[in-house]
Amino acid sequence: MSAMDNYCVNALRVIAAEEITKAKSGHPGIALGAAPILHTLFTKHLNINYEDEKWYNRDRFVLSAGHGSALLYLMLSLSGFGITMDDIKEFRQKGSKTPGHPEYKHVPGVEMTTGPLGQGFATAVGMAIAENFLAAKFNRPDYHVVDHYTYVLVGDGDLEEGVAMEAASLAGHLGVKKLIALYDSNDIQLDSEVADTNNDDVKEKFESMGWDYFNVKDGNDCEYIDRIIKLAKNSSRPAIIEIKTIIGHGAPNSGEKSVHGKPLSKEDIEELKKNLGANINDFDFPDVVVSYYKKTVIDRGYQACSEWNEMLRYYAQDYSEEHKLFIKFMYDEFEDVDLSKLHKYEAGSNKSTRQMMGEIFQDISIQLPNLIGGSADLSSSTMIKGADGSLSASNPTGRNILYGVREHAMGAIANGLTLYGGLRGVASGFFVFSDYLRPAIRLAAIMKIPSIFLFSHDSVCVGEDGPTHQPVEQLTSFRCMPNVNIARPADAHELEAMMVNAVKNNDYPSVIVSTRQGVTNLDSTDENKALLGAYKVFEANKNSKFAIISCGSELELAVNVAKKYKEEGINVDVISMPSMFLFERQPEKYKAELLNKYDVKYAIEMGSTMSWYKYAHYVYGIDEFGASMPLKEIYEYYGFTVDNIYNETKKVFK
Amino acid sequence: MSAMDNYCVNALRVIAAEEITKAKSGHPGIALGAAPILHTLFTKHLNINYEDEKWYNRDRFVLSAGHGSALLYLMLSLSGFGITMDDIKEFRQKGSKTPGHPEYKHVPGVEMTTGPLGQGFATAVGMAIAENFLAAKFNRPDYHVVDHYTYVLVGDGDLEEGVAMEAASLAGHLGVKKLIALYDSNDIQLDSEVADTNNDDVKEKFESMGWDYFNVKDGNDCEYIDRIIKLAKNSSRPAIIEIKTIIGHGAPNSGEKSVHGKPLSKEDIEELKKNLGANINDFDFPDVVVSYYKKTVIDRGYQACSEWNEMLRYYAQDYSEEHKLFIKFMYDEFEDVDLSKLHKYEAGSNKSTRQMMGEIFQDISIQLPNLIGGSADLSSSTMIKGADGSLSASNPTGRNILYGVREHAMGAIANGLTLYGGLRGVASGFFVFSDYLRPAIRLAAIMKIPSIFLFSHDSVCVGEDGPTHQPVEQLTSFRCMPNVNIARPADAHELEAMMVNAVKNNDYPSVIVSTRQGVTNLDSTDENKALLGAYKVFEANKNSKFAIISCGSELELAVNVAKKYKEEGINVDVISMPSMFLFERQPEKYKAELLNKYDVKYAIEMGSTMSWYKYAHYVYGIDEFGASMPLKEIYEYYGFTVDNIYNETKKVFK
Repeated sequence: MSAMDNYCVNALRVIAAEEITKAKSGHPGIALGAAPILHTLFTKHLNINYEDEKWYNRDRFVLSAGHGSALLYLMLSLSGFGITMDDIKEFRQKGSKTPGHPEYKHVPGVEMTTGPLGQGFATAVGMAIAENFLAAKFNRPDYHVVDHYTYVLVGDGDLEEGVAMEAASLAGHLGVKKLIALYDSNDIQLDSEVADTNNDDVKEKFESMGWDYFNVKDGNDCEYIDRIIKLAKNSSRPAIIEIKTIIGHGAPNSGEKSVHGKPLSKEDIEELKKNLGANINDFDFPDVVVSYYKKTVIDRGYQACSEWNEMLRYYAQDYSEEHKLFIKFMYDEFEDVDLSKLHKYEAGSNKSTRQMMGEIFQDISIQLPNLIGGSADLSSSTMIKGADGSLSASNPTGRNILYGVREHAMGAIANGLTLYGGLRGVASGFFVFSDYLRPAIRLAAIMKIPSIFLFSHDSVCVGEDGPTHQPVEQLTSFRCMPNVNIARPADAHELEAMMVNAVKNNDYPSVIVSTRQGVTNLDSTDENKALLGAYKVFEANKNSKFAIISCGSELELAVNVAKKYKEEGINVDVISMPSMFLFERQPEKYKAELLNKYDVKYAIEMGSTMSWYKYAHYVYGIDEFGASMPLKEIYEYYGFTVDNIYNETKKVFK
Repeated sequence: MSAMDNYCVNALRVIAAEEITKAKSGHPGIALGAAPILHTLFTKHLNINYEDEKWYNRDRFVLSAGHGSALLYLMLSLSGFGITMDDIKEFRQKGSKTPGHPEYKHVPGVEMTTGPLGQGFATAVGMAIAENFLAAKFNRPDYHVVDHYTYVLVGDGDLEEGVAMEAASLAGHLGVKKLIALYDSNDIQLDSEVADTNNDDVKEKFESMGWDYFNVKDGNDCEYIDRIIKLAKNSSRPAIIEIKTIIGHGAPNSGEKSVHGKPLSKEDIEELKKNLGANINDFDFPDVVVSYYKKTVIDRGYQACSEWNEMLRYYAQDYSEEHKLFIKFMYDEFEDVDLSKLHKYEAGSNKSTRQMMGEIFQDISIQLPNLIGGSADLSSSTMIKGADGSLSASNPTGRNILYGVREHAMGAIANGLTLYGGLRGVASGFFVFSDYLRPAIRLAAIMKIPSIFLFSHDSVCVGEDGPTHQPVEQLTSFRCMPNVNIARPADAHELEAMMVNAVKNNDYPSVIVSTRQGVTNLDSTDENKALLGAYKVFEANKNSKFAIISCGSELELAVNVAKKYKEEGINVDVISMPSMFLFERQPEKYKAELLNKYDVKYAIEMGSTMSWYKYAHYVYGIDEFGASMPLKEIYEYYGFTVDNIYNETKKVFK
């Protein structure tokens, strides 16, 4: 490695180790081992520009092995992203700019929140799909307005994760170009050597999935890493570069698993410096390092960005229509939905919300060219299919992604599409199998990004397929997850509201669930009120003392029960609550006015009762797994009939 | 294929199609396509015995593609498992013996509940690990008391699932023998042809993970399938046989995706019969088919079982010690834990519950040789390590499984170990990453099997690692899952109770969570009362009108707040509620006596508030994602201090 590279890498190593030691927390192993990889990538390849952090055509870099945060923050600091040495000294402290793992929207230059292994890799696949898609859509001869690489640093753990293998398989199938995985292969895991738990032939495995494989035997050789990255950039399909490194390189316990997650002692750091021959003052990058980064990543990024902006001006002249649309993608300006063009459903008509969801999704997709995604091999059941045909080599601008039975990667890829900017990723499946992609949905919620998850078959009304296919606890399991709009619309009005909200909001993912079975479109539901999360749909009397709260396919039942009461002269109101998440965001006054007037509130839902006790005194639900039987038997079996709900509520409506 | 095979296979096809059509629900595609595979397996290889359904040395067969249930029930019917034609006619109906997907403990002969794709494959890996382990432990020269195969039928969808890839990688690493995956490779998925979403080279992929790969080009050729199964049985490592079939073979829409999940019409069935040349009366297996199955699978199984029982009698003579222990495994007789030999902790001592969990787990493991499992590369953090060293080729009786960073497969494999019988599978990781294996835990809950899931780092007190590593909603997400003992013990007493309960109970999985940080061992907690799910740990006064309900690391805080109230002459009791699941199983009288006497109940927990509203009027919790900072800042930041909880509760304790 050149003297300069060596000097920079060792400075990074020493200061990363100091950063972790000062924090008394962090992961020196990867920071010391992978420093040459990131140094090479940043100084010789990565096109980013701190002055225009969200430059649309920047290279994307994801640190899938998020525990390498200490090193990443140094890279971003040297690359001009406004992370000071004071920030570095506050690594992992309260309120600092340098949290334990990279956090999107919190740390400048960080492309996504990472930490849960495998997610970064799979999400990077989504970003690269976005790049390929937009390139196909907008590039013209001599105008490569979308033309950059997506890099992702992965460790052994990342590649053991199923979500990564699913994503790799799909990326290989789609022949995703300009995706380069840098595999920090150090032979050490936390509990053992890699060889004690994993003998995969990585080359053969990735090649079997349609990837190009490259190898760097000496992970300290920046020139060789550079050379191989150049080769990988010419791949016509996704590429992985396995780079042999030594975990904790230079530390007294380098090559041992103990160096993974235990800060070095002061003495260890002295020995590290000695071993590396690095003479670095505490938390002080030598000027020569700073200026080398200035000359490389900063200047190159600035120049690339400038040239691109210039090109874009000519593109605007030569391809003004394309340019106009491109700008809308760039600034994410796809929020206006012409509601008059959406399917409308007569009050009293009967249709499953999944069918209506599919129709409305199609209607919206025609209007919003940024919606992209599909189903995990269930579009014929969930009715969710992206527009413009299926994405493939022969149809590179298709917006339907045939995810295959890869739910988890689907979730992560939807996040990658959304994170890319301009696009909004869509994922779909049976609600019960949302469990498979829950970690990806959680990450979307943590990142506050508006990925869209559309699940059908939302209750035991799935019927014959039985308990493995009948969701019971899933609604509660998302309602307790922060920052997710888990919505269960009762009919077309509420469904439309939630769908439009999903494509308009920018702050949270939406998880919208639909029925397998038909529901009646009600005349009392309301698109606007639905967005309050809860509202009154049936008022028996201004002074009703009783209320039933419900949502989804049970709302009609609730209304029918209230009507039966009404016939008997008992006043029971009905509250529709399609989204506890949206309801919780309303002013206290609204919430109190809606709910506090009743003496007795009874919630009914075909699912876990747990989430309702905050709002209701009593709950009629299903706190056991479902059972296989035809739909028509389900209502009776679980007691979701007018008579039974009437009898149950009657016990306390007095 | 021989005339007999042909005749049997076509009879299976026709009746399976009828079964589905009568139910108006089900999946003809796989039933028609894979009939020759299951016919060959059952009639020529599978050693099972309906007269001794749980015969310990039977071959295990898992239908990972659980939507093939219609066919499986016919196989089990012909194999003598007491499924009548009346049962078959009740396919997917309420209360029938033949539910939509195969259900463990419900359908005789079904080895596990399947339906969620990938789970069956990964769980079968666990079963085969169990076989290999027990064989190494008990077999002696001339006495192969554990010596059978584990077969699993998988479809394209199964192999696209990440959980399957994780399990395949681990199986290959461990060199699991006598595991044979029969891959029903029909080139068709639900949304498209396989080639439209997947170009994996399956041979290369599996070989890269250490499997042997075999191929059958004509999935109708029973003799060839038979020949290849014989070859695969000689593999010294796991084997997969890719068998090319035609989805919906014989149906008018065979080879098309529409045949996957749509019942045939009456006319289609007539055409099916014609195409197959099958002259079969409605729901009526010809005698020749019945007697062929009698002569093959039934007689062979009976004989194999008899010979094995005879061998076991000699084994008892020649290896009486081993035999004694073997019998304990066979009858799952490992429930007695000598509590006096478990670590004890002084009241007032301070230790993290994860450390104590690790110690108690070790203590129990020494007593119970049936506990087997480990961590997903986190044993140094979760402290959970199986006994007797790590399982490997050179230590085939090690009970610590180095799962690698394969959380999902870990969960499924733990289930497979448990399902095997005698053994009890253990899985461990960070609680926040329980999301990754949630589908496997759900299946354990559905099957009512006692797999053990031990998670550490149970709250935002994880600290520096930040929101991706800090569980918030996970407790609620398991509390709402039916049939899981999700337990959050406060200290050593409650921890011991839950750990011992986990190894003793036979009806539900346990999910026990532990702290990263130290907790004080209290003098008022109680091992026996903890098993009631909730009990009083601090009584300020017999007539206290206020109560704080809490659990886990917040229990001590609750007690300290109550003591502060006491000093001021206000009586506040404290209820410990380590397990809502166990509490809900108590008699109404106990529940009412414990909770109904208070005017105001306040729950406090460092996590989602949602689950507490059933028991408390007010909840102080954390309904947002965590933040990266050192532990000492966390308490203050989230208000979990005596002063703040006192102030918050004071607002309503009046």
